[in-house]
Amino acid sequence: MSFTDSTDSGSDRPVSVLWGCELSGARSSCTFRVTEDWRCEQQLVLRTACLGESARDEFHVLEVVTEDGDDRAPVPLATLKPSVLPSTSLAGVELNPPVTFRLRAGSGPLYVSGQHVSSEYRGCP
Amino acid sequence: MSFTDSTDSGSDRPVSVLWGCELSGARSSCTFRVTEDWRCEQQLVLRTACLGESARDEFHVLEVVTEDGDDRAPVPLATLKPSVLPSTSLAGVELNPPVTFRLRAGSGPLYVSGQHVSSEYRGCP
Amino acid sequence: MSFTDSTDSGSDRPVSVLWGCELSGARSSCTFRVTEDWRCEQQLVLRTACLGESARDEFHVLEVVTEDGDDRAPVPLATLKPSVLPSTSLAGVELNPPVTFRLRAGSGPLYVSGQHVSSEYRGCP
Amino acid sequence: MSFTDSTDSGSDRPVSVLWGCELSGARSSCTFRVTEDWRCEQQLVLRTACLGESARDEFHVLEVVTEDGDDRAPVPLATLKPSVLPSTSLAGVELNPPVTFRLRAGSGPLYVSGQHVSSEYRGCP
Amino acid sequence: MSFTDSTDSGSDRPVSVLWGCELSGARSSCTFRVTEDWRCEQQLVLRTACLGESARDEFHVLEVVTEDGDDRAPVPLATLKPSVLPSTSLAGVELNPPVTFRLRAGSGPLYVSGQHVSSEYRGCP
Repeated sequence: MSFTDSTDSGSDRPVSVLWGCELSGARSSCTFRVTEDWRCEQQLVLRTACLGESARDEFHVLEVVTEDGDDRAPVPLATLKPSVLPSTSLAGVELNPPVTFRLRAGSGPLYVSGQHVSSEYRGCP
Repeated sequence: MSFTDSTDSGSDRPVSVLWGCELSGARSSCTFRVTEDWRCEQQLVLRTACLGESARDEFHVLEVVTEDGDDRAPVPLATLKPSVLPSTSLAGVELNPPVTFRLRAGSGPLYVSGQHVSSEYRGCP
Repeated sequence: MSFTDSTDSGSDRPVSVLWGCELSGARSSCTFRVTEDWRCEQQLVLRTACLGESARDEFHVLEVVTEDGDDRAPVPLATLKPSVLPSTSLAGVELNPPVTFRLRAGSGPLYVSGQHVSSEYRGCP
Repeated sequence: MSFTDSTDSGSDRPVSVLWGCELSGARSSCTFRVTEDWRCEQQLVLRTACLGESARDEFHVLEVVTEDGDDRAPVPLATLKPSVLPSTSLAGVELNPPVTFRLRAGSGPLYVSGQHVSSEYRGCP
Repeated sequence: MSFTDSTDSGSDRPVSVLWGCELSGARSSCTFRVTEDWRCEQQLVLRTACLGESARDEFHVLEVVTEDGDDRAPVPLATLKPSVLPSTSLAGVELNPPVTFRLRAGSGPLYVSGQHVSSEYRGCP
């Protein structure tokens, strides 16, 4: 993911880029990473989760694993089912990369959307 | 889209204008663009997606394509179905124009609403 | 709508007043206006839409018309049905008055809630 | 409701305290008041509304009455029904106390949650 | 929970760490505490609540107890049921630790997610 638009790197205006991933039986996990150079105040702000039109009518549980804190247990974020709730807001959950998304239940496809927000604070190397 | 109200162009107060588009079988994509003159800190902040009263009882998947980043794969944002979930919040997704909305599934009508926010920062040409 | 509480008119603290309107077959449109004196930075921030307990089990589509921009086409914001989705968040849509709400479909009653926010910026006459 | 934690009363850091009320046939209205001493910039920010597990399968309409403005008509905020929508976000509605919540329809129990936010601005007596 | 990333402890940039807990018949309550050293402006901001795929088709009512205020009665926040609403946003409820989450009804598993936000204000010891 490039930040070629962000030529004014001296400012502390955050740069936001749309991000999405697809989880399914074939690919039941996906990881969002940032390169070390961009480590300085990066966040993934989650927006929505929704099922594909071909998803089976079963419960899909989306969970996330972070490297924050001592615990690192997976945290379930949303439960979707085509005939009950095919789409939901993820309520602006803010995550510090790297983070890994997984299907705890269900075979997808389930789509996660968010924004990769990059703030360049003055104190940043 | 004009900004005739924004006569105080010296301030950095953001100007916000309601925006909407309709997607259907006849028009399965729509693009939000800004003119180059207004390129300076423009965003489309998504608010809601909802189905028209005549939409067929099938899954409708709304996706968006941006020119951010290297990837540019479409990102599904919401899945609606008249008998299950006819309306949803889009959770304030912020997009950098130009962006294109498409129906990945379903024949609509599906309506997207948002706000075109234009901030004029001092450093702006 | 009075602003008698806002005696400290020298500050730039926004004043917020709850606002609501009811749409039905008998009254299928309602307009939110501000007097010219209060034209200086007024907004209507939408909060929720919900159906009355007597609403018929049909789709209700809420749309809004603004005088922003060149286009001024109505923008659908939410689709409700008693047996499917009787209530929804309007995701904080910010509108510049005057704005008109209408029932594109359905006979209501449908209720819209929001906040009339009045900010008095220093540059304001 | 005490604010014993807010010993640093010289700052303008807002203090937030969880608030909740229960509405039912036995108690179909509840009022949120603040004492005059604390009148200075108090708000009730609504968070969620949900039904109790024993609520009857009927429509419950939550409405609020404020003393803002000239009008003071009740404003419906959410419509819940156990078998359709037992819980909803109240989208951060901000209210100026005193405010009264009522069940326009339904016999509950219906629970409202929010935060009592108290900001002490410098100009405040 | 460690804050090893927050080496720049002189700034007032908030540090946010994902937090989650699971409630079930076996463990029907969970408490979020912070150590005294970190007492200085800590909050738990709630994001989502969702049911596990094995939850029984019954109403689950999530409630929270805080030590704020005089009252300390439990406040119900959300009502979920697998066949009706398996997942919801908790609307950014902000809580001051310690706080205890409980299942008022239902046997789970029910998952709560949030962010532990730690702000270090300058005036802080």
